[in-house]
Amino acid sequence: MSRDTMKPLNNADFPDLVETCISSEKISGGKMIYVQRDQIRLPSGREGFREFVVHPGAVIILPLLDNGHLVLERQFRYPLQQVFIELPAGKIDPGESLLVTGQRELQEETGYHASEWTYLGFQHPCIGYSTEAIYIFLARGLTLGEPQRDQDENLQIFDMSVQQCMDAVQQGLITDGKTIIALMWLEKYLNGSWQPMELPS
Amino acid sequence: MSRDTMKPLNNADFPDLVETCISSEKISGGKMIYVQRDQIRLPSGREGFREFVVHPGAVIILPLLDNGHLVLERQFRYPLQQVFIELPAGKIDPGESLLVTGQRELQEETGYHASEWTYLGFQHPCIGYSTEAIYIFLARGLTLGEPQRDQDENLQIFDMSVQQCMDAVQQGLITDGKTIIALMWLEKYLNGSWQPMELPS
Repeated sequence: MSRDTMKPLNNADFPDLVETCISSEKISGGKMIYVQRDQIRLPSGREGFREFVVHPGAVIILPLLDNGHLVLERQFRYPLQQVFIELPAGKIDPGESLLVTGQRELQEETGYHASEWTYLGFQHPCIGYSTEAIYIFLARGLTLGEPQRDQDENLQIFDMSVQQCMDAVQQGLITDGKTIIALMWLEKYLNGSWQPMELPS
Repeated sequence: MSRDTMKPLNNADFPDLVETCISSEKISGGKMIYVQRDQIRLPSGREGFREFVVHPGAVIILPLLDNGHLVLERQFRYPLQQVFIELPAGKIDPGESLLVTGQRELQEETGYHASEWTYLGFQHPCIGYSTEAIYIFLARGLTLGEPQRDQDENLQIFDMSVQQCMDAVQQGLITDGKTIIALMWLEKYLNGSWQPMELPS
């Protein structure tokens, strides 16, 4: 496999794969998630449908304390009926920059402010049925203030060392995908093997 | 933080976090994804709603060739209007074991059979609005047969070394979350630092 593989993929190079929109409708009557159904043209010329969640994108924060511990949350996630250990994260508000989302969510959920922000990279958690992208920031120089959680946003804040977090992934105690990927980025960044991506404008 | 943190979390230990179902309805009229809306009781006693995608779970496969390359796919993902580089993966059919899902999807999508299967671990890609869990298998001892793709399941199969895959994550060329987490598990397993989880029954 040549290094050509490392160039960003361009849809125009893949006419045998690309699907195009014929028509589009909102099918979810819900207020919390927005589901879209598109009638599409397949590469074969046949028609089909695609249904997916339309999502504004999110930011996840790795809040690294001076003692080498990460600030984490325990939160009940209703779809899976389970309390999860997660890093702070939240949706991007309309018109908001990624950095401001990170600063806002960290402060609202945990009360922490950070003096040093480093963008690491991004990922798509659910390419089959969601438009979501999650942008990963490392936050250092933390000072504790007051959280400003939404009413009924129930969280418990605690901290663990980076090594304890990695052990928790290996043991299946941390299974939240966005948290696992952020931890992997942090480990690679801190040991010098990965350089951050460029912050998307 | 004591090692108590490493015990699996039990909902009964978190009465201030857990939400309970009052009533439940299907709100999506779609045929491809199933969206559920539940009226819930919050820890405060107030009522609220939760909407989420109900998903059967999926298996992702790391098909490792004898030359140290991984078998990968290029696939157009309509929600993000983009061609992605991904590992083979697919949904669990009703009543199917995780291993059989992995064997079936690898064969259908790529044509490969594997003589050696190792379960590594699992993750939840989208805990905020989906019930999906993704189970990760390493497949070795590969022999090539004929793929049996669904009509209009358009894929391109190729391969890259594990190191090229990790470079592609760092450079933002591989952004599919399930593929990133499987690659992280593979790297940790191959270098001996992580032991596989126990296969869920």
